[in-house]
Amino acid sequence: MAHAETGEHHRIATPEKLAGAVRSRSIVIQNVRPEVDGGRYAVKREVGDALTVDAEIFKDGHAKIAAVLKVKRYTDAADQWTELPMELVNPGLDAWRASIVLPENTRYVYTIEAWDDPWATWEHDIGKKIEAGQDVNLEVIEGRKLIDEAKARAAGTVDDDGFRMLIERMEAAPDTIGKAEVMRSAQAHDLMNRWPDRSRAIAYDRELEVMVDPVRARYAAWYEMAPRSQGTDPNKSATFDDCIKRLPEIREMGFDVVYLLPIHPIGKVNRKGKNNSVTAEPGEPGSPYAIGSDEGGHKAVHPELGTEEDFRRFVAEAKKLGMEVAMDIAVQCAPDHPWIKEHPDWFEFRPDGTIRYAENPPKKYQDIVNVNFYGGHQMELWEELRTVFEHWVDCGVTIFRVDNPHTKPVPFWEWVIRQVKDKHPEVIFLSEAFTRPTMLHMLAKVGFSQSYTYFTWRNFRHELEMYLTELTQGPGKEYLRPNFFPTTPDILPEFLQRGGRPAHMIRLVLAATTSSVYGMYNGYELIENTPVPGKEEFLDSEKYQYKVRDWDAPGNIKDYVTELNEIRAENPALHELENLRFHGSSDQNVIFYGKRTFDDSNMIFVAVNLDPFEPHSSILSFPLEELGIGPEDAFAVEELFSGTRRLWHGADHEVTLDPQDNPAMIFRITRWKQVDYYNPSY
Amino acid sequence: MAHAETGEHHRIATPEKLAGAVRSRSIVIQNVRPEVDGGRYAVKREVGDALTVDAEIFKDGHAKIAAVLKVKRYTDAADQWTELPMELVNPGLDAWRASIVLPENTRYVYTIEAWDDPWATWEHDIGKKIEAGQDVNLEVIEGRKLIDEAKARAAGTVDDDGFRMLIERMEAAPDTIGKAEVMRSAQAHDLMNRWPDRSRAIAYDRELEVMVDPVRARYAAWYEMAPRSQGTDPNKSATFDDCIKRLPEIREMGFDVVYLLPIHPIGKVNRKGKNNSVTAEPGEPGSPYAIGSDEGGHKAVHPELGTEEDFRRFVAEAKKLGMEVAMDIAVQCAPDHPWIKEHPDWFEFRPDGTIRYAENPPKKYQDIVNVNFYGGHQMELWEELRTVFEHWVDCGVTIFRVDNPHTKPVPFWEWVIRQVKDKHPEVIFLSEAFTRPTMLHMLAKVGFSQSYTYFTWRNFRHELEMYLTELTQGPGKEYLRPNFFPTTPDILPEFLQRGGRPAHMIRLVLAATTSSVYGMYNGYELIENTPVPGKEEFLDSEKYQYKVRDWDAPGNIKDYVTELNEIRAENPALHELENLRFHGSSDQNVIFYGKRTFDDSNMIFVAVNLDPFEPHSSILSFPLEELGIGPEDAFAVEELFSGTRRLWHGADHEVTLDPQDNPAMIFRITRWKQVDYYNPSY
Repeated sequence: MAHAETGEHHRIATPEKLAGAVRSRSIVIQNVRPEVDGGRYAVKREVGDALTVDAEIFKDGHAKIAAVLKVKRYTDAADQWTELPMELVNPGLDAWRASIVLPENTRYVYTIEAWDDPWATWEHDIGKKIEAGQDVNLEVIEGRKLIDEAKARAAGTVDDDGFRMLIERMEAAPDTIGKAEVMRSAQAHDLMNRWPDRSRAIAYDRELEVMVDPVRARYAAWYEMAPRSQGTDPNKSATFDDCIKRLPEIREMGFDVVYLLPIHPIGKVNRKGKNNSVTAEPGEPGSPYAIGSDEGGHKAVHPELGTEEDFRRFVAEAKKLGMEVAMDIAVQCAPDHPWIKEHPDWFEFRPDGTIRYAENPPKKYQDIVNVNFYGGHQMELWEELRTVFEHWVDCGVTIFRVDNPHTKPVPFWEWVIRQVKDKHPEVIFLSEAFTRPTMLHMLAKVGFSQSYTYFTWRNFRHELEMYLTELTQGPGKEYLRPNFFPTTPDILPEFLQRGGRPAHMIRLVLAATTSSVYGMYNGYELIENTPVPGKEEFLDSEKYQYKVRDWDAPGNIKDYVTELNEIRAENPALHELENLRFHGSSDQNVIFYGKRTFDDSNMIFVAVNLDPFEPHSSILSFPLEELGIGPEDAFAVEELFSGTRRLWHGADHEVTLDPQDNPAMIFRITRWKQVDYYNPSY
Repeated sequence: MAHAETGEHHRIATPEKLAGAVRSRSIVIQNVRPEVDGGRYAVKREVGDALTVDAEIFKDGHAKIAAVLKVKRYTDAADQWTELPMELVNPGLDAWRASIVLPENTRYVYTIEAWDDPWATWEHDIGKKIEAGQDVNLEVIEGRKLIDEAKARAAGTVDDDGFRMLIERMEAAPDTIGKAEVMRSAQAHDLMNRWPDRSRAIAYDRELEVMVDPVRARYAAWYEMAPRSQGTDPNKSATFDDCIKRLPEIREMGFDVVYLLPIHPIGKVNRKGKNNSVTAEPGEPGSPYAIGSDEGGHKAVHPELGTEEDFRRFVAEAKKLGMEVAMDIAVQCAPDHPWIKEHPDWFEFRPDGTIRYAENPPKKYQDIVNVNFYGGHQMELWEELRTVFEHWVDCGVTIFRVDNPHTKPVPFWEWVIRQVKDKHPEVIFLSEAFTRPTMLHMLAKVGFSQSYTYFTWRNFRHELEMYLTELTQGPGKEYLRPNFFPTTPDILPEFLQRGGRPAHMIRLVLAATTSSVYGMYNGYELIENTPVPGKEEFLDSEKYQYKVRDWDAPGNIKDYVTELNEIRAENPALHELENLRFHGSSDQNVIFYGKRTFDDSNMIFVAVNLDPFEPHSSILSFPLEELGIGPEDAFAVEELFSGTRRLWHGADHEVTLDPQDNPAMIFRITRWKQVDYYNPSY
């Protein structure tokens, strides 16, 4: 039986051990936030964010204590802490707080240290006694002793002089009260606070971690594409050069990330045909998720797309335009993947000697062989997969979208993501965790930077409000960043099948304005929504065939996409996730929500008609009190799609949203500067 | 800087360590409940309770897993676990559960273990394939291998025969499907489940503790008394013999615990006089909280009360009547306590050589010297205090009420309570933690069996509902048992000062029916409520003087107390705490709540008029749906003070409560047996 981590400290077995263990804990430091699962997992932030740490800190009796927040990079030495004084923000609840800006893309470690502060106790007590006219002769002697001790700790520092002068002034004072006043001076206070006795300080029993990612982990717009579909000949694969040609158009639509379906050689054995048929006709390209053939495996490029050199050029061109490339990594093999011959111990074979292919009984996936993470030579397998990520990072890839991570061991992800990020902290991992909520959250906890979510299946007002509130304000907000995709190559939701163009606009505006990071799968702009009948899948999916498109086909919503991404870019409130709040709307078909920057310098409100078939009018209730706008005050409203400007009074305003035209309105609010008629500044 | 416990496992520093640490955690066991602060502190239960343990348990992929709850006494050897299979109660949420009855008054340890269950996976997969008409020849071979492995594990046990017969039947089967059917039999299922391969089982990384206390830790009625006030001569102390004479009357009122103010010798130096005056007149007895004199310290009995032998007799007489004795322990000294001469290092001295007495500047408490827990010879001090508790346990005391525990170090309490309870698990500690909520809760976490609460200052409906819901359903319910006292020797709340006899009845019925354990301070039954003007303190408090009372004085509420305790005794729903729920009442002065046993065999509802001055009528809304009573069904209602019986229909019923008569009604509900007219049983 394996004990992964010792649980010993949780169990206090012997009286001797207990006495020893608890003796020094006279100051309690507890309920530290943020903290995920008792500190087992890191919280996440982005470069430039403030980390605000809250804790309950207290001890017995009435003596005063002091506390600091300690922060360092995980690579710093044990004594390289930066310390910030914590503030007692609510004495009745023993609530302490400190806040620090995290400037670098790295992992930081943070913890808390607290100690007795006899000087603060002395200051408090002598103050009360002097107020009550009591004799403080003994207090002055005791205070002098504390000063002498601090002076000894400061010996040899710039504060030598300060202590010397303080003592001189004390000694020159004519009487006890005079001495006490010198000791209660601001100068004494500052000096003493610089030299506390921390020899018996108590450390919080955990060191917590915060992974500080690049800002694009939180704010980005992704364009997902099948590279072989970016050309013009329906009978053959497009190349990376064709992909390069499409980059300016994608950038013009306002996307920051170009995400490619797998680019590796595709298995030739048991290759799937058009519309997922069991056998491919000659010339059919197979699924890019059936990875590996005699042409190479997870570190190779499909020859039809080009060479690794071509791929590097594609990445470089994207970067020139200000875009990062995201790559799809699926840890699975075609039956002719080179690993199977080189490392048969990484796979499972059946009693008849055949390799075990993927199954979900009674379904069979004959073109896919799963790697066996529970067989022999596990560490070699982990290492090989690590080098797969490293290989593509070396080619300039900074983002990985991981296919089905929930069917591989959680510990593997924790290990490999940390391995990669320790060398390349800028790398972002997106988890395609379309599975149960426990596993979806666990993958985020162990290191995935972003996660697919159930957004794809949340269409109506109440379910959207509940789910988005959970994502933005629930415990997951510390570690799980949702990345909203209205469709994926695997999922064409019923709402989009039925609702056509208006539904595509609805889902796009929801994704782009509720989450700070979202993505769109190519073809979405062309309202491609023909399903395999009765399924949530695309008919004639490019997963199984070559495909070409007219990217400017009539009825496309490229202008709408462009407008939305421009609105996002210009409004910092939309770059954040946790600031989403829902507000009142009289019609149940109309959802209404707002996002504001922490300083209210940018305040955005969005109303979306969720019914793709009919216009709806609704009275929207703006939360004026929260916005600091009085019931009689005017406020300026700019509708960002139309550019319309209005001056409004009062909370409630009726709007009509016609899904055929534009299912949404996005309002930017500014407070109207109030003129103080009694003290005009003009 | 002291690290009390290593936080090392929380911080995973090196890739090597990470790989090793996480490799074996492929099964995730998380969100285990109950669990206090990540397992740092024990949860509490009482003898005969069920411990229901919930957890989320899952792993990657679709393979099945199995899990057990493991429980043992803390004194049992490492391999003496009792195991219970956990049940997957919600597959979509990976929610597992098991429940076990805790039969003994001891500390138990519990944890979880989970492992891969390839047999369950095999059963699931082959079932689906047979259903779909697929060939299962390889599956039968693979299943046979699993059976052979289990057979090897069972070798030499009573299951040898079972496996042999199973294999014979398999081999006798004519074809693959026939063999598969034998392997899918209930017999095979049971055999295989008895012999799982647990060689790679995953243990939850913590062992959790549950302290199982005697039932009286949860259900009891306490009578608090000053032993020196139980006599008849106002000029001298009563004795333990006088106290013995009062026991039958206390027992007749329905109390289970007699709790005595401190019984030790009282300091003669700086003794306080009547009404807390700074100096005592000759002959004044001083405060029993100024402990110790030349007559002895914390292990001695005040000579005026009698001898230790007399005290032992008092305890024995109480036990004869079915009552336990609770003793007040205040870790503080009079200036002439023997410890001060014997152990000056346990105290603080000032620069002029005087001992530091208790202060809360500018207030001074010259008759009290606090022990210094932060001076020298700390362990000797801890040991001495441990022997104080042991001494009184030896005299038959099983309950300690600890005075001001929040002014002594938390680690000391954790240590001393565990020391005492390891030898004497029946001992109960009540914490007088009238302090901030963090410390109040912390003292409960580290071991106090019960706690004083803010009940004393919660008088009106909304604040009572909020606070009692927090106590009975908040996280504290796992470790904090409230003990409700309407008054204490230190606290005479304004509500009782103003509201007289009706207020005393209101607060008593609230204490006795909301909490399963409550207490009453002597004199309460006589409506003693004269305050020191402007303060929440008793005038002429027996803390500072001799006192005699006429226990049958007119206007007493002894009958009411007796009735209440009888109602409690007869109704098991009132013996529990967590079952408190509030219900609708149309008048804001009338609070309405219910308590039901888990099996609904006892259902109690209580309505209390919280206004001591005026009668109020209110429409009470009984939660019929929760009670399984249909809107048309009749239910029987017995009002327990009056004995009135009624047959009611519908949820809403109006009552009028006159505080001059009885501010409360207590209803016992029984469902009226429905006759099934279509299938009469007669």
